Amino acid sequence: MRISPELVTRIIPHWPVARLATISDDGTPHQVPIVYVFDAGQFWSPIDGKPKRGTSLQRVTNALANSSGSLLIDHYEDDWDCLWWIRVNVDIEVIRLDKTDASSSRLFEHTAQALKDKYPQYAKIEVLQDPPTLLSLQPRDIKSWCAADIDDQMYQHG
Amino acid sequence: MRISPELVTRIIPHWPVARLATISDDGTPHQVPIVYVFDAGQFWSPIDGKPKRGTSLQRVTNALANSSGSLLIDHYEDDWDCLWWIRVNVDIEVIRLDKTDASSSRLFEHTAQALKDKYPQYAKIEVLQDPPTLLSLQPRDIKSWCAADIDDQMYQHG
Repeated sequence: MRISPELVTRIIPHWPVARLATISDDGTPHQVPIVYVFDAGQFWSPIDGKPKRGTSLQRVTNALANSSGSLLIDHYEDDWDCLWWIRVNVDIEVIRLDKTDASSSRLFEHTAQALKDKYPQYAKIEVLQDPPTLLSLQPRDIKSWCAADIDDQMYQHG
Repeated sequence: MRISPELVTRIIPHWPVARLATISDDGTPHQVPIVYVFDAGQFWSPIDGKPKRGTSLQRVTNALANSSGSLLIDHYEDDWDCLWWIRVNVDIEVIRLDKTDASSSRLFEHTAQALKDKYPQYAKIEVLQDPPTLLSLQPRDIKSWCAADIDDQMYQHG
């Protein structure tokens, strides 16, 4: 069954992690866990200061060549009546800070603050590594599934 | 940094859930959480009796048309020193039970038993719904990442 739209709307901003899928240049899918904030109808995910694998990030390379992406927000636990997922098809844009543009600076300041508010971990880790880069993930459609009727209590298990 | 190959080898059979990405016919990525067993060098994931969204499963439709897939096995927690992921590029084959073929019957019996051994939840849920279908996921390459040095204790947090 589906999760109610009201509950989807409450889970998305709150949930700490999503899995992002993009398409590599050989046509194969690529996945990575990401952190994000949901603001102004979009997901925003930073290239942050957590240690990374390799210097050029595959998610960025892929999104620059092909804007199609998928976000999966889901919950696993041993009680399979509590399983659920929310899947969002997204168009991805790679946004670099342009310090000469006031609106770009404001966007990066606003989004960095929203990320710090959601994730206290950014007190110790840079929210944006150089060059400051955000992935803007614009939802095209949202689908959901749950094994049984879930309510606010249940989704907070995760 | 990478997770040691020895630890990757221990995590994969033990971990309860992976996220499978496939490619839809419009070229966009599609994701879904799956359960699996790892046996004979491959991942095996059943189309089981858990309630499903829709009658024809997108993962099956996609894999029949395009065998490229990605499996993501990962761990999120609030302590970001404990983050890790294992990403496996896979070739997917959709296998249907052929009851007239003894080796097909043996494969399905063997895999169903392995799934029941890993997941006690199958005591109450059919491990294979009709028509009996398995996804065989053959690894092409495996990459891993961890934020800090993880050991056996740490990965068992999940």
